[in-house]
Amino acid sequence: MIIVMKPRAKEESIKAIIRLLEDTGLTAHLSEGKEVTIIGVVGDKKKLLEKNVELFEDVDKLIPVTESYKLSNKKFHPAPSVIKVKDIEIGGKELVIMAGPCAVESKEQLFESAKIVKESGAQILRGGAYKPRTSPYSFQGLEEEGLKLMAQAGQEFGLAIVSEVTSFKAIEAAEKYVDILQIGARNMQNFELLKEAGKTKLPVLLKRGLASTIDEWLNAAEYIMSEGNPNVILCERGIRTFETATRNTLDISAVAVCKLKTHLPVIVDPSHGTGQWEYVSPMARAAVSAGADGLMIEVHPRPEIALSDGPQSLNPKKFAALCKEIEVLASIMGRGFGRDI
Amino acid sequence: MIIVMKPRAKEESIKAIIRLLEDTGLTAHLSEGKEVTIIGVVGDKKKLLEKNVELFEDVDKLIPVTESYKLSNKKFHPAPSVIKVKDIEIGGKELVIMAGPCAVESKEQLFESAKIVKESGAQILRGGAYKPRTSPYSFQGLEEEGLKLMAQAGQEFGLAIVSEVTSFKAIEAAEKYVDILQIGARNMQNFELLKEAGKTKLPVLLKRGLASTIDEWLNAAEYIMSEGNPNVILCERGIRTFETATRNTLDISAVAVCKLKTHLPVIVDPSHGTGQWEYVSPMARAAVSAGADGLMIEVHPRPEIALSDGPQSLNPKKFAALCKEIEVLASIMGRGFGRDI
Amino acid sequence: MIIVMKPRAKEESIKAIIRLLEDTGLTAHLSEGKEVTIIGVVGDKKKLLEKNVELFEDVDKLIPVTESYKLSNKKFHPAPSVIKVKDIEIGGKELVIMAGPCAVESKEQLFESAKIVKESGAQILRGGAYKPRTSPYSFQGLEEEGLKLMAQAGQEFGLAIVSEVTSFKAIEAAEKYVDILQIGARNMQNFELLKEAGKTKLPVLLKRGLASTIDEWLNAAEYIMSEGNPNVILCERGIRTFETATRNTLDISAVAVCKLKTHLPVIVDPSHGTGQWEYVSPMARAAVSAGADGLMIEVHPRPEIALSDGPQSLNPKKFAALCKEIEVLASIMGRGFGRDI
Amino acid sequence: MIIVMKPRAKEESIKAIIRLLEDTGLTAHLSEGKEVTIIGVVGDKKKLLEKNVELFEDVDKLIPVTESYKLSNKKFHPAPSVIKVKDIEIGGKELVIMAGPCAVESKEQLFESAKIVKESGAQILRGGAYKPRTSPYSFQGLEEEGLKLMAQAGQEFGLAIVSEVTSFKAIEAAEKYVDILQIGARNMQNFELLKEAGKTKLPVLLKRGLASTIDEWLNAAEYIMSEGNPNVILCERGIRTFETATRNTLDISAVAVCKLKTHLPVIVDPSHGTGQWEYVSPMARAAVSAGADGLMIEVHPRPEIALSDGPQSLNPKKFAALCKEIEVLASIMGRGFGRDI
Repeated sequence: MIIVMKPRAKEESIKAIIRLLEDTGLTAHLSEGKEVTIIGVVGDKKKLLEKNVELFEDVDKLIPVTESYKLSNKKFHPAPSVIKVKDIEIGGKELVIMAGPCAVESKEQLFESAKIVKESGAQILRGGAYKPRTSPYSFQGLEEEGLKLMAQAGQEFGLAIVSEVTSFKAIEAAEKYVDILQIGARNMQNFELLKEAGKTKLPVLLKRGLASTIDEWLNAAEYIMSEGNPNVILCERGIRTFETATRNTLDISAVAVCKLKTHLPVIVDPSHGTGQWEYVSPMARAAVSAGADGLMIEVHPRPEIALSDGPQSLNPKKFAALCKEIEVLASIMGRGFGRDI
Repeated sequence: MIIVMKPRAKEESIKAIIRLLEDTGLTAHLSEGKEVTIIGVVGDKKKLLEKNVELFEDVDKLIPVTESYKLSNKKFHPAPSVIKVKDIEIGGKELVIMAGPCAVESKEQLFESAKIVKESGAQILRGGAYKPRTSPYSFQGLEEEGLKLMAQAGQEFGLAIVSEVTSFKAIEAAEKYVDILQIGARNMQNFELLKEAGKTKLPVLLKRGLASTIDEWLNAAEYIMSEGNPNVILCERGIRTFETATRNTLDISAVAVCKLKTHLPVIVDPSHGTGQWEYVSPMARAAVSAGADGLMIEVHPRPEIALSDGPQSLNPKKFAALCKEIEVLASIMGRGFGRDI
Repeated sequence: MIIVMKPRAKEESIKAIIRLLEDTGLTAHLSEGKEVTIIGVVGDKKKLLEKNVELFEDVDKLIPVTESYKLSNKKFHPAPSVIKVKDIEIGGKELVIMAGPCAVESKEQLFESAKIVKESGAQILRGGAYKPRTSPYSFQGLEEEGLKLMAQAGQEFGLAIVSEVTSFKAIEAAEKYVDILQIGARNMQNFELLKEAGKTKLPVLLKRGLASTIDEWLNAAEYIMSEGNPNVILCERGIRTFETATRNTLDISAVAVCKLKTHLPVIVDPSHGTGQWEYVSPMARAAVSAGADGLMIEVHPRPEIALSDGPQSLNPKKFAALCKEIEVLASIMGRGFGRDI
Repeated sequence: MIIVMKPRAKEESIKAIIRLLEDTGLTAHLSEGKEVTIIGVVGDKKKLLEKNVELFEDVDKLIPVTESYKLSNKKFHPAPSVIKVKDIEIGGKELVIMAGPCAVESKEQLFESAKIVKESGAQILRGGAYKPRTSPYSFQGLEEEGLKLMAQAGQEFGLAIVSEVTSFKAIEAAEKYVDILQIGARNMQNFELLKEAGKTKLPVLLKRGLASTIDEWLNAAEYIMSEGNPNVILCERGIRTFETATRNTLDISAVAVCKLKTHLPVIVDPSHGTGQWEYVSPMARAAVSAGADGLMIEVHPRPEIALSDGPQSLNPKKFAALCKEIEVLASIMGRGFGRDI
């Protein structure tokens, strides 16, 4: 933490800050510059959290030097985390693809989807049972009934299962059926939900909020991890910008940034990130080439009759073609995918 | 809803759309333009929600013509809603000020704050008991104990009470103590929480999400209202932009837009909207001059020792001065404030 | 400037930085923290500009402490600048309103506009002769012919004249006819144009770029001022965000921020800032209440036949009503407007 | 163009619109919906541009149906454009890499850079002679002297030359020395500069403005093309968002969107797009995998002594490694790169 004083700060103002730091058990390092004086703070800066140093006389601003997230911070845990789900390793050598319909609509639709997913070499089935929708008049999901169908499909086709949870009740239900809990973008800063997910033993796929900085995202991961659950998988799914040609702006550079800042695995969801099926395959390839550990893709046996997000879903043929492309790209990136099918 | 076809769309593609519309009980109006053909859809467009018309051959795009929110829409309910809280009317002639500390810290701090709030003519006491904080290592609030203190302070000083709820459990507790439930920006699209708040009989102050469009905000209000609770108060609190000089960009024009689009009252929170006390009074004045029905202001007896958001809190003297300015501005705007103190 | 080292930085890396600073004639202040070591740089930081310290081994990041703009910086010139245009003082006690049509279309339209502007008490006539339009197929302005009409209207009605320049040629023409050169938002970082405007003796109204930070805006002002022209008037006109209900998001808080950071006068353009006439008056009032030194408003004798920006223009009656409101607000803000009419 | 009327619009209001359209030589198609009436406009909508239909009574809003750019629009020119520069084809089968230093600093630095660029298989040398910098106190470039050095380096190493122009004077100078004119992000809506570039016979590399939509970018291309110069190369270089971990957010999905909307070639600049060398290679790979026609990369013989943008420049070794990776990726994407070296 650095404290920047205003130009021509009074000497007693500077002394007051130094006194405050010393009283708090911290050390002050003074640099008197040509224009301004700055004070470096040495020690555990959490002690300063509620001191409101900004309000002391002649203080211009505070500049944090270190990140507030610790457990998810690569600086303190340099080795990449590998998260095990059944026999799948996320963040390991294999590239992982999670695919399936946006929403579970019926057993038939789900099983057809699962078949396609399995045949293309993807390892994990996605499917929403609790759907957060902008309008209350849109389809809201099959809830626990949907989770049961997911579990059945997972067993039938040998796929792990990931599904979104939107409330404590949903977490309770999901714990019985799924392998990975998903926290959606709209709930990335629903801190109560994060803590509750942190109390389970299940891996948590944490989507980036649609207006969240990477720093806030890693702090959200910290909420889960500080409850004792280290198994967090980050998922970039697009941020909100002024551009309207795509539903969101998929921030592929977030993959590269995360690889530098955290040891957690990072996957990318080009379906929600773009909102249009034509853009899904190019962006999936981009994500893998940038170093993503996996992908989350919406697939539907017949997108034109999907109850949710049809326009961004790939049909079976397109999904199979994409998986083939990914297989080649993965090998160039020094990773494997799909070779054992 | 309008369906725009691609240039040179095949006739059978156009016929397929018309057939779909007719099968769904809708009427198609065809306009064959110089460049493209468009199809106007007449009837209840909800019937089309899950038809994925975008995926039909030769369809370029769909353009919605009407808003998806209905209960909150001024087009269908032109008269402004006035929401009663005790003897206070929000959205009526009186301007309403909600003020108090960011977080309830202790009985002493809260009662001191309440006294300041009352003496300046504000009608409602704010104070957080459940605090959503970016980092899990920051102060998280006194929870139910904080709500109890709020209720006591409200009674002692004759103020109504508003406090944020972040979970079902918090709503349950809050129903016993507060007059207005607050849904914070980070939970604006926590739809489960919205529905639960909609099931209570309490007025709900709904903050705009930090990356939410006004359209999404009104759809969030719709979630609460469609559960049977019409008493929603909108609160603009700044949106996220590229500008870093302020914590958020307080979107004052949202007040003017809401006045055109919805009958619900709109208040403004310049404390969170700017993040710095120097900007609070100018922006409070701006909000009232733009037509806001009220303000939410952070006040602390001694901001320099606040456990949360000290730098954006007004001290008693500055708050009293602001209330005097607001009184004058309110009268210019044809409203009252504080005259009966 | 502060240099933050990576955790566990090697001692020789730290020494290398210190050596670099000393060789450059700067002083290093070392703070060895619990997690990281930081090095405060004392001296003229411009010397470091091209040293690429970020690339030295074990350097994590550089954090600037002081602003790069100097001439426009309030820290070094605390007294507010008052800019004289004829007998008008911008940034002084009088509130200044610049009004007129978006584009000069004809002598008749311009003179009618000028009459309205004068009668309402506004002091300056605006009107575009060189129009930067998104599409090359839109009306591009009357160019020098338009400026001549502006000058005539100014003389006829006793108004000062402001008009946008988009090229060296336009500046050359404008110098003959106008009192204030306007640099539009799209040219805020057209540095060649800024320098050329800085070489004239005319006051320059500098609009904020639609995606520019306040810091960049003040640096753009610095380009003009460092050429020897201190007469810069800042004009906030809305920034680009994800919100689509308004053409831009008018950042009223920029007024309050500028008042803290610069001595230059700041005015606000609610017409371009919102794009819709219904929002112009509320936002004009908000701007004045937040402390703006003036307003720029689009007025058209008959907006429904305007060749450019009709939908955001006020008609004569609405403009007169707004000026009356502003007169009252100005007096509350301790300023004058329009009393001598 | 569609005109949406307000609910309960008066019949005479609707008739007034129809009359207006007919008087303008357009045809009206009426759809009377359950909630609102809409009017489809058939004919050349440019005729309506200055009619301000929004201001007619009972009109709610206008919705454009077709794009305003025509020459750059894929709908009207489905075949991809291939732009020839010497013996290089941009937008053809070969992937094109433009590389070199941010700024031309000296003959030695430039020639060293050119050698690296050539040896790695890149075809075009980049280097700035006119540098638009945020602060007037930063290095501003060698101007015409820099262009001369560029031309010499191009000849010496058999590379085509691209360099940024920031004024008419710079275009005039550049025409003598360079093969491709570059219009930078900050000048994307400097329409006078676009028109002037359109009057030359040189290919123009048009960078996307840092807050420009893809639609505005294609309209900017239209400015160049409508002056008679069809040779426009689009270059995505990052847009401004709230994220601060990267200098900009490189919008890789813009590649996919452009491939759908325009026939012009699209390249990507990951150096400016991210601002940090660690992110350049991952994002370069992402761009190629998403379908970009080429890359623009900053390379410097010794980034640590670069006068401009050192932190985002690759050193020779890293650039050579990247080019090898790109060669493999290009072949997977069905393209060639570097095989003839």
